[in-house]
Amino acid sequence: MLKIDFNSDLGESFGHYSLGKDAEIIKLVTSVNIACGYHAGDPDVMAQTVKSAESAGVGIGAHPGYPDLQGFGRRKMQLAPLTVQHLVTYQVGALQSFTSAGKLHHVKPHGALYNMAAANYELALAICHGIQAVDPALPLYALAGSQLVKAAQATGLPYAQEAFGDRNYLADGSLVPRNKAHAVITSPAEVAAHVLEMVTKKAVTTLDGSLIPLAADTICVHGDNQAALAIVSHLQTTLLSHGISLQPFKK
Amino acid sequence: MLKIDFNSDLGESFGHYSLGKDAEIIKLVTSVNIACGYHAGDPDVMAQTVKSAESAGVGIGAHPGYPDLQGFGRRKMQLAPLTVQHLVTYQVGALQSFTSAGKLHHVKPHGALYNMAAANYELALAICHGIQAVDPALPLYALAGSQLVKAAQATGLPYAQEAFGDRNYLADGSLVPRNKAHAVITSPAEVAAHVLEMVTKKAVTTLDGSLIPLAADTICVHGDNQAALAIVSHLQTTLLSHGISLQPFKK
Amino acid sequence: MLKIDFNSDLGESFGHYSLGKDAEIIKLVTSVNIACGYHAGDPDVMAQTVKSAESAGVGIGAHPGYPDLQGFGRRKMQLAPLTVQHLVTYQVGALQSFTSAGKLHHVKPHGALYNMAAANYELALAICHGIQAVDPALPLYALAGSQLVKAAQATGLPYAQEAFGDRNYLADGSLVPRNKAHAVITSPAEVAAHVLEMVTKKAVTTLDGSLIPLAADTICVHGDNQAALAIVSHLQTTLLSHGISLQPFKK
Amino acid sequence: MLKIDFNSDLGESFGHYSLGKDAEIIKLVTSVNIACGYHAGDPDVMAQTVKSAESAGVGIGAHPGYPDLQGFGRRKMQLAPLTVQHLVTYQVGALQSFTSAGKLHHVKPHGALYNMAAANYELALAICHGIQAVDPALPLYALAGSQLVKAAQATGLPYAQEAFGDRNYLADGSLVPRNKAHAVITSPAEVAAHVLEMVTKKAVTTLDGSLIPLAADTICVHGDNQAALAIVSHLQTTLLSHGISLQPFKK
Repeated sequence: MLKIDFNSDLGESFGHYSLGKDAEIIKLVTSVNIACGYHAGDPDVMAQTVKSAESAGVGIGAHPGYPDLQGFGRRKMQLAPLTVQHLVTYQVGALQSFTSAGKLHHVKPHGALYNMAAANYELALAICHGIQAVDPALPLYALAGSQLVKAAQATGLPYAQEAFGDRNYLADGSLVPRNKAHAVITSPAEVAAHVLEMVTKKAVTTLDGSLIPLAADTICVHGDNQAALAIVSHLQTTLLSHGISLQPFKK
Repeated sequence: MLKIDFNSDLGESFGHYSLGKDAEIIKLVTSVNIACGYHAGDPDVMAQTVKSAESAGVGIGAHPGYPDLQGFGRRKMQLAPLTVQHLVTYQVGALQSFTSAGKLHHVKPHGALYNMAAANYELALAICHGIQAVDPALPLYALAGSQLVKAAQATGLPYAQEAFGDRNYLADGSLVPRNKAHAVITSPAEVAAHVLEMVTKKAVTTLDGSLIPLAADTICVHGDNQAALAIVSHLQTTLLSHGISLQPFKK
Repeated sequence: MLKIDFNSDLGESFGHYSLGKDAEIIKLVTSVNIACGYHAGDPDVMAQTVKSAESAGVGIGAHPGYPDLQGFGRRKMQLAPLTVQHLVTYQVGALQSFTSAGKLHHVKPHGALYNMAAANYELALAICHGIQAVDPALPLYALAGSQLVKAAQATGLPYAQEAFGDRNYLADGSLVPRNKAHAVITSPAEVAAHVLEMVTKKAVTTLDGSLIPLAADTICVHGDNQAALAIVSHLQTTLLSHGISLQPFKK
Repeated sequence: MLKIDFNSDLGESFGHYSLGKDAEIIKLVTSVNIACGYHAGDPDVMAQTVKSAESAGVGIGAHPGYPDLQGFGRRKMQLAPLTVQHLVTYQVGALQSFTSAGKLHHVKPHGALYNMAAANYELALAICHGIQAVDPALPLYALAGSQLVKAAQATGLPYAQEAFGDRNYLADGSLVPRNKAHAVITSPAEVAAHVLEMVTKKAVTTLDGSLIPLAADTICVHGDNQAALAIVSHLQTTLLSHGISLQPFKK
């Protein structure tokens, strides 16, 4: 039977500030990426979010980011690879300590850290080493076909290849940059068709109409607002109706 | 054979800022309390300090503090007990992830957090719960006779009773407050005699001359400057010459 | 003609986090207290909020708080008075630099800083000195009858006495603590009657039914949510219908 | 009479952390760049450093940097120009408020902000706009011949061209990158000869031996350690013995 994992960011509130529709998106996904206090989240939010995620039975992932709360971890920072390694270890270790089992399901880097490492092998390696220091068997969620995948392979770290249901792809397998036309897909029906193709054909139709291979283990979805939730809900219904099993990634 | 543990704070540098004589004090102690990024330390400093401590073979403890870098964790903050619990879990988990074994030797709260919890049972409980979330077998270093000891006993957390070689005691077993005369002992000979009495008699002569019981498992020492190092060096020599074994605390 | 000032906190968003109904409350008040980056706000939010406030023609005040974003400046911190003085100067100076005129209308301390200084003369003095370093003619918004008023008088700093329309008072002129019954008034009609009494009688009926003098120059109102806005809207209508002029405080 | 300004960074301590030989370097320079709490410094340090600088009679400049204490403002961050503008206004306003006169002598961006803006006109413009919001007559210290100079000219902001006595230049007027050979000059005699040439000839001999024009209004010097102080001391003596006047930059 075909299967796929849906992952979503969670626990992005901070102190007095509330963000995201955590209670709703958690019911629609099979794994979650929980902020670790650097770009979002704080120890109180982390404790509460891990508890919710354990109740929901989803795979619990750490979502480490740059130390930049004001920029929500989305602003590029030029850090030494060793510094990146250490801030990953720090955040992953901190989040792991809130789980009942003392074990995480996966790690997915956040924002600028994810994007920069997807294109920079040295950074990607630093992230893998940072994860391995905590647990060498802890899978990395990595942009399909990116340097993150290459670094995971080189270091022997398990990994899941991640695809984006609401983003269009270029013929070389990269995402259409956000500042270009047709970067983002907003129609629930189109997102569902896009992901259905990925899961059933292990391929994706790119913006120029060609079909290229894409090995997706997990689909990134969003729970920021009602429209995002509607997309995920429609996607869930569509995949289930095609007999595809939704379950947390297993290496 | 009589034995005792010497513990000292370590890894209090931050980014471009250097603090403490870590390389020298680490040779004189048997366990260390490493800052976890809230009141001092950063992931780079933590990684490097854990490595040094593992090389030196000392017991590696987490040293969680209030989120107050400017105040070095020495300023009282009024946080909810649950918030304290979570910030302890966060910091202990973060530090633990840098160890090769994925295990710590102990946890010692820092500064205002230590002092407030020593006198406040609810805070002390919160700290114990925060540690237990990471590892229920992880010992707490607690001011001898304080609420931290009571909370550890109540929660079943292992603990070491801590005494201060360079501080005078009052008849009720508490430390002479720092703003009073004779709070601090600066003579290496007097510190050595003070600790020798603690270890051999399991008691301490208080400021008013009475001898009261004191069960010290570990002695807090300092490595901030040359004078502090000289005190520890003399203390070490004195205890060894009396046949006392210096070794990390064992529960 | 009777007159009164309504003040409300503004600019409490931070980075990716949005807070408060700034666009709506700004139309209902005559002066605003803008967060300065320590407990809320960031330079981008401050620039934008000052601009909105200048367009709206309200009195622009700095709203300095403790350096505690996670606690939203509501957690007590024990800082040296000189440190409080300097963090007030810092935040007031920073906010002032965003105004077109390079001048502020007032300063109102935030949260725990306001509450602690209202009861602690030394802290209140530190706040006054911190303001005077920036501009000796800059009025302090101070809890009516509190140590903040006394410190302003002693240092020659202009001040406005502040009252709370949605809070009940005790016979000694202090606010009913929030953890007691009847601390907060939630009925728009009751809040309006409460403030009407303050403005027309220069007095307030306390929880035990006595009428005590209260010299209110400014009323603190809130714009956190729809219910809060409804209270302010009703209050505005009520006061205007009684011929009371709403205008920024003038010393 | 020929004249020149020596400027040095000051006030880079933070909380419990001490950095730099402020008391010594302040006697050797004519203007200082004081950290503003983002990459270094805190309100207590700022207050104390401004006081020292006023006593010493040197020109007091703000030294705004990226919000990155761990990286000491030396790590590149990709911020929107408007965000840079606002963080400059914030920091300059904050520092200005500590001066007795409520006026600064100049602004010099710090570290990665300085370096990135020297090469990026849009960033340089943002810095100029950020300064002008505080005081349109406040001079910018700008790398000689850089985009910072061009932006200051375009916006009408006064500026001083800055040269580096301890750095070698390339034929195009840029500094030899720090990771290349001969980037830094460490001999006091060579530094003195280098600066003497700049001041007397308004030119500099580059690494390849050519002499290119260089209009230096101010020389950047350092007070981090004894060796740095020795360089400045020798430089001061040399210039004075050649009848060159050392005085704060005047526009």
